[in-house]
Amino acid sequence: MIATDRPLAIIAGGGSVPTRVATAAMEAGRPLFVVGIEGEADPGIEGFPHAWVGWGSIGRLERLLAAHGTKDLVLVGNIRLRPDFKRLKPDFGTIKALPEIASILIGGDNSVLTGVIRFMETRGYTIVGAHEIATDLVAELGPVAGRSPREAEMEDARIALEAARTIGELDAGQAAVSSGKHVIALEAAEGTDAMLERVASLKQQGRLRRDGPVGVLAKCAKPQQDLRVDMPTIGPRTVEGVVKAGLAGIAIEARHVMIVDRDEVVKLARDAGIFIVALDLARR
Amino acid sequence: MIATDRPLAIIAGGGSVPTRVATAAMEAGRPLFVVGIEGEADPGIEGFPHAWVGWGSIGRLERLLAAHGTKDLVLVGNIRLRPDFKRLKPDFGTIKALPEIASILIGGDNSVLTGVIRFMETRGYTIVGAHEIATDLVAELGPVAGRSPREAEMEDARIALEAARTIGELDAGQAAVSSGKHVIALEAAEGTDAMLERVASLKQQGRLRRDGPVGVLAKCAKPQQDLRVDMPTIGPRTVEGVVKAGLAGIAIEARHVMIVDRDEVVKLARDAGIFIVALDLARR
Repeated sequence: MIATDRPLAIIAGGGSVPTRVATAAMEAGRPLFVVGIEGEADPGIEGFPHAWVGWGSIGRLERLLAAHGTKDLVLVGNIRLRPDFKRLKPDFGTIKALPEIASILIGGDNSVLTGVIRFMETRGYTIVGAHEIATDLVAELGPVAGRSPREAEMEDARIALEAARTIGELDAGQAAVSSGKHVIALEAAEGTDAMLERVASLKQQGRLRRDGPVGVLAKCAKPQQDLRVDMPTIGPRTVEGVVKAGLAGIAIEARHVMIVDRDEVVKLARDAGIFIVALDLARR
Repeated sequence: MIATDRPLAIIAGGGSVPTRVATAAMEAGRPLFVVGIEGEADPGIEGFPHAWVGWGSIGRLERLLAAHGTKDLVLVGNIRLRPDFKRLKPDFGTIKALPEIASILIGGDNSVLTGVIRFMETRGYTIVGAHEIATDLVAELGPVAGRSPREAEMEDARIALEAARTIGELDAGQAAVSSGKHVIALEAAEGTDAMLERVASLKQQGRLRRDGPVGVLAKCAKPQQDLRVDMPTIGPRTVEGVVKAGLAGIAIEARHVMIVDRDEVVKLARDAGIFIVALDLARR
């Protein structure tokens, strides 16, 4: 992690990653404050100095951050980007910021996060990536889990990763599957899990080879993705999807893909006999 | 069509296109002979000078072509590229050609057609594209059917066509869907119909906008595709899939995409209120 003792605030959405980041910050001796988003964050954040805020309580959020002298923020965890506005109880800080918030939301999904970052930065905050605090959320170049890939599997890994990069450049998706040196699935709005279900179903229909596990899922970041707040991820569900799809392994872009619940991912990959490797991706 | 009176043979697989090509050749006064592949071709070919041959009867096929003095061949219609070898009754011509046939089949799906073409060309035949005979199988630049696209729809058409070209360069697929200036689906092994079903289901799940028909399906040829024997196609089922997916229209690459059952396609598009346009695609 970054060598600093500036106070850090973690704005925590759902899932296990926020507590993972909090633990890493604590271990590094960094002053820490966790702000759990109500209805999103895991109760595990209560093991750290924390407070809960509701969607739309920007006034309260800013007062909390000011009270802790915190200018460095990690925004991490699953959030529903378009909260149910009927349940919103905006506080005064939110109402003051409403025109800006409205323009963020109107911009559509892709620009929401960019909008949030810009909104916080204009208020003097610095956005820090979760993987800058908990560095093992991403993988360095090389083997990550499970057995070693064979040469033909490495070729599928490279073909799938190249395809994933290409569709990332189209801002369409982050994942692709190659099998037998041929791209057989490309991810767009459906997401990685649904794409893997499709591969499983094509194999069941006999429309793809299925003599033993073959083929590789690759995942990488889009060039326009802000890795501080929006990283491609793999997790236990990804490994399960890959196994059900009869694939041989997973290739992720080194340092650009978050591994959620890494211990479980490693165990699942080993037990299933698949491989996970991190590869470098030359950016065009 | 090409101005020539050289005898033409149509090797006919399934569907309506072979008889469409035969009709166009007849209307142009070209000497014609149709060879129906048993179990594949439509009985409609019996309205033309014809014979039936089974898979694997290459000796008989060559004798038939020689008897008609035919060196120009159209290979058209749906064929199962990997016939059930248990049902094959190879004749002597096939047995002589077996080593070559085996190497064609071992090459995998993509190279099968290339292999067949090379095989026929080394025997002195010329392969002619179905669309060179029945020129209205493809569309010239401009409106093809239905209403006119609006400007935002034309933008989605261009984005989807660009995405389709890009995944074609990966040899992954030929079709893509853009909606709201964003690529939401990319075709690979599942095919266009399954991709459209996916879009329909994403809309049903509320994961995509569905306030009225929006979004465009685009389809184009892969750069490595031999258009004489392997064209991307759209047909009535494509239009139905687009309507079910709640899309506003279809963009096809001018002169590179075959429109199967064009009259029905035009009627379906008009009745459903969608558009079909043919666009030029700058090749890189």
